[in-house]
Amino acid sequence: MLSFSRSDVEQFYQTNEIETFAVRPDEAQIIFSTNLSGKFDLWAMDLPNHFPYRLTFNGQSVQTAHFDKQGRFAIVGYDHDGDENTALYAMRPQGGTLLPLRTHKDAFHSFAFLSEDGERLYYSSNKENAQFLNGYCYYLQSGEEELILEGNEAMTIIEAVGPEESSFVYSKALSNTYQTAYVHKGHEDIPLTPQTEEEHVVSDVMYVSDEEIYLITNYQSDYSYLAKFNLQTKEFSEVLRLEHEELMRVKFDRERHILYLIASRGVVDCLYQYDLTHSRLVQLDIPVDQITQLEIPESGNLYLLGMSATKPSNLYRYQLDGHYAAWEELTHNRVPGVDELEMVDPEVIRYPSFDGLEIEGLYFKANEENDNQHLIFWPHGGPQWAERKSFRALFQFLVYRGYSIFAPNFRGSTHYGLAFTKMVERDWGEGPRLDCVEGMEWMIEKGYVERDKILVMGGSFGGYMTLLLAGRHPEYVKAAVDIFGPSNLFTFLESVPEYWKPLMKRWLGDPEEDRERLVADSPLTYIDKMTKPLFIIQGANDPRVVQKESDQIVTALREKGIEVEYLVLEDEGHGFSKKENEIEVYRQVLQFFDQMVLSSK
Amino acid sequence: MLSFSRSDVEQFYQTNEIETFAVRPDEAQIIFSTNLSGKFDLWAMDLPNHFPYRLTFNGQSVQTAHFDKQGRFAIVGYDHDGDENTALYAMRPQGGTLLPLRTHKDAFHSFAFLSEDGERLYYSSNKENAQFLNGYCYYLQSGEEELILEGNEAMTIIEAVGPEESSFVYSKALSNTYQTAYVHKGHEDIPLTPQTEEEHVVSDVMYVSDEEIYLITNYQSDYSYLAKFNLQTKEFSEVLRLEHEELMRVKFDRERHILYLIASRGVVDCLYQYDLTHSRLVQLDIPVDQITQLEIPESGNLYLLGMSATKPSNLYRYQLDGHYAAWEELTHNRVPGVDELEMVDPEVIRYPSFDGLEIEGLYFKANEENDNQHLIFWPHGGPQWAERKSFRALFQFLVYRGYSIFAPNFRGSTHYGLAFTKMVERDWGEGPRLDCVEGMEWMIEKGYVERDKILVMGGSFGGYMTLLLAGRHPEYVKAAVDIFGPSNLFTFLESVPEYWKPLMKRWLGDPEEDRERLVADSPLTYIDKMTKPLFIIQGANDPRVVQKESDQIVTALREKGIEVEYLVLEDEGHGFSKKENEIEVYRQVLQFFDQMVLSSK
Repeated sequence: MLSFSRSDVEQFYQTNEIETFAVRPDEAQIIFSTNLSGKFDLWAMDLPNHFPYRLTFNGQSVQTAHFDKQGRFAIVGYDHDGDENTALYAMRPQGGTLLPLRTHKDAFHSFAFLSEDGERLYYSSNKENAQFLNGYCYYLQSGEEELILEGNEAMTIIEAVGPEESSFVYSKALSNTYQTAYVHKGHEDIPLTPQTEEEHVVSDVMYVSDEEIYLITNYQSDYSYLAKFNLQTKEFSEVLRLEHEELMRVKFDRERHILYLIASRGVVDCLYQYDLTHSRLVQLDIPVDQITQLEIPESGNLYLLGMSATKPSNLYRYQLDGHYAAWEELTHNRVPGVDELEMVDPEVIRYPSFDGLEIEGLYFKANEENDNQHLIFWPHGGPQWAERKSFRALFQFLVYRGYSIFAPNFRGSTHYGLAFTKMVERDWGEGPRLDCVEGMEWMIEKGYVERDKILVMGGSFGGYMTLLLAGRHPEYVKAAVDIFGPSNLFTFLESVPEYWKPLMKRWLGDPEEDRERLVADSPLTYIDKMTKPLFIIQGANDPRVVQKESDQIVTALREKGIEVEYLVLEDEGHGFSKKENEIEVYRQVLQFFDQMVLSSK
Repeated sequence: MLSFSRSDVEQFYQTNEIETFAVRPDEAQIIFSTNLSGKFDLWAMDLPNHFPYRLTFNGQSVQTAHFDKQGRFAIVGYDHDGDENTALYAMRPQGGTLLPLRTHKDAFHSFAFLSEDGERLYYSSNKENAQFLNGYCYYLQSGEEELILEGNEAMTIIEAVGPEESSFVYSKALSNTYQTAYVHKGHEDIPLTPQTEEEHVVSDVMYVSDEEIYLITNYQSDYSYLAKFNLQTKEFSEVLRLEHEELMRVKFDRERHILYLIASRGVVDCLYQYDLTHSRLVQLDIPVDQITQLEIPESGNLYLLGMSATKPSNLYRYQLDGHYAAWEELTHNRVPGVDELEMVDPEVIRYPSFDGLEIEGLYFKANEENDNQHLIFWPHGGPQWAERKSFRALFQFLVYRGYSIFAPNFRGSTHYGLAFTKMVERDWGEGPRLDCVEGMEWMIEKGYVERDKILVMGGSFGGYMTLLLAGRHPEYVKAAVDIFGPSNLFTFLESVPEYWKPLMKRWLGDPEEDRERLVADSPLTYIDKMTKPLFIIQGANDPRVVQKESDQIVTALREKGIEVEYLVLEDEGHGFSKKENEIEVYRQVLQFFDQMVLSSK
């Protein structure tokens, strides 16, 4: 046979992603946001044909796609080059020129609900209340708008509206681990969870009827569970709890009175069907390790978006009428030119941290034939987030190129109970950092890597942690890459968007009260020790970690005569919205790392 | 309901095209060249799933896609930015890095045949014989190559290879209307059609067995028909003739001993099944007006690529086992945001020319609600080509914007018999031009357009004709747009590729013998009279009409103080390979035309 060379690096980044989707109520069309053309746009398929056609041509990520009940139009929301100022438009199912609905300049519009008749759009926005947000009901026909909720105390967002629109539920996000929800009816605002000083989260709500609201919460619990709130009796009650699993989201099949529950068990997701009539719980087989989105139209068919470590995001359908015995893959995203078997499914590694706390992490081992013996240590972003079994072109590509990767879910990570998640709050730079150091030490001790062959890279909080490790533990760090990470917690606190500020004190700290800790936890404090090769990447439009964050550390380092590579992406925000940018950045990262590997030969 | 504005202009150019395709012998995969991502690349679908995934990432048009019989790899051929120097590569079905096979610099490689065992590749190339081409057999395993055919007299191309490789057929293209074919066996070269001085074309050949070759020819006929040649008896015989239809191509279902014949009837195509065993002819219903390509794998299923005036190119499948009662659409290309009903199916118009010859043309009438009363007169390219019922974003978009269009198939056009087609030979500027003038006059007289509202536009030969009409008949031309058209027939004769030269004398003329006529037929001769607004567009890499062609007329006009808009596309050849270029050019063309319309208000 002909001898082909191995697949090119770039192809890993040519893997397409699907961000969000919506199913037209008649199920003859699915619209979905994907970067099939290199940039994100809204595409569609007309079932049963799976071949996609493009609906929008602006190359922007789509945050909202929601069909009118009669399928006449969809509400579509997207921002500009990652600036997170989502504007809302109406779009005909066949595409064409979009009709601007709510597009206030320099503000975001968070879709909540479209009325049954398609005439009233409920949403939240920071346009008139920069810090706490307001809730609105916009009348599509007349163009009039009603202010229905004035945010206060914390970021306030409409989460759900009752089927008859006689009440709605809103949430207040006091921190990532403290989010309460209230039902607003008439002049009343009734909390969905009983009054308590204890921090907890209401993470999803679902009106089963105008009187009955199901919710997912961790009220008085380490793991979250299913509860309900009766609007007539004003009673909160626990409904269902899954052992060692975190309930994440709830969907409702109104016709059959069935709830679908998405739960997380460590690094994978599970799907359950919960029959409300008979209180019967059934676990469903799913074709993915991680569920991004689940939609259930009137037919009761399931439409699922999800992925695995070795398989990028795809859309699947499960038809109740039994046309298909199993999940049918509607899309067909793969890594071009790379077989699923050539990729690496990560091993789960657990180690005890400095204080005995067990930390779990994913270890991707390079294939023997081209293992360069270097380990990339990857502290994830968030920080209240987790590295799970999802497809990451970056990881698979680096492994394909001979690097092993270790990504620990340090304290503060989600999916390990509330107490674990809260451990990072007001402690960004100490506990999580020591978990990282212990993780590196563990990897060395257990023989996964030699002491001088650890490279560190991370984005957002992971970028921050990368800088901190580079400054405080240069002895572990052969070289470091910071992507979109804050360098100075004081300026970071100042520069985050207004609506983040109420959260920040609880989450990170107060510039006055916590002065000393914030100094100790800021990478900028340790630039004298940042002597290892450093590469900093920043998005110019980033509203979360503004460019100043990276500018100042680069300037400070250069003033000290310390060399640093610096790359500013003019058309990106906090993350990559454009594939060509992502490819270019990681090509440069690979070059940077490959130099480090070469230097040790 | 919400009131949406009409679809944007740009969306017509966002319509995707499919250039060519190949079906893997097991029919589990189709690979096809499409501009789904904005540029052309090879994509695939894994049947029964229709969702496409990309195989190549170089953004180049693909000229060849041909699977190995065992489906282990495909031969893929593409050029660079339209330079027509097709190079041949091997590609695994899943994509990945391509393996260069025949990639001689600055030369093209025209695929002919891949042996049953996938080890020998037959092709023609100008790499060692710039004018006449040579034929080669390349051994994929050893990398060795055998020269099997030395071209002479005219462009010589291997057309087909016998199933057992004991003979092959090659063609000699003396002109567009004179193309002979020979079977080469041992040391013999036997003409497939009987010896004659009369010009004729062998347009397709098909080995039915090692002894029997079917061919399509117009030998001793105005319209082409199916004939066969017996290699043992050396006999040529007519097999099948369709009244008023031009046979175009022949395909073979080897298992069932059935020929499939593609024929043209005026502006549409027809498909016939011809059972060789019973000499039975059946016309098949097809889902398109024009067939681009037809493939028949061993199963006997039909795979068809085609389009209609209001529907862009799509792939269809007809399954013999009756799983589908009709043609199944595998792809789903449409004009984004524009309903098929909003587009215009052209009316066929016939008029007598200056000498009584009947000329047929397509008339696209603008919709009443936005008809701007202007007619765009479109002389097609070729010139031995025809405007037929195929999807043209350009036409549909201009009609959508209020322009009507008339595209006459002037003398020299194909599909009206050989005599008609030959009328343009050595007469580029007289007969065809007068057909155009008569066409314009007819449209005015019959009330389709007012005398001062005709805009002229064309590409390639159509661009040449546009310039000629602008220079010789400015009284008919309100404004003109020349796209990739030659302006000076002398320099055009000199600058065409070497392998074109043998054709040129017969087709256009000789710079010495036909001096006077070539002067009279060159647009450059009439620049003094080119006083109407003019817009010239040229591709910098065009190997057929080199940039000098446009440079010289622009320079000459400017020297005379005549204003002309001039646009050179740095990364295009003779046609558009990149969608964004096409959009930009036609956006400028529309602006140019809209100014003309405004000026008459």
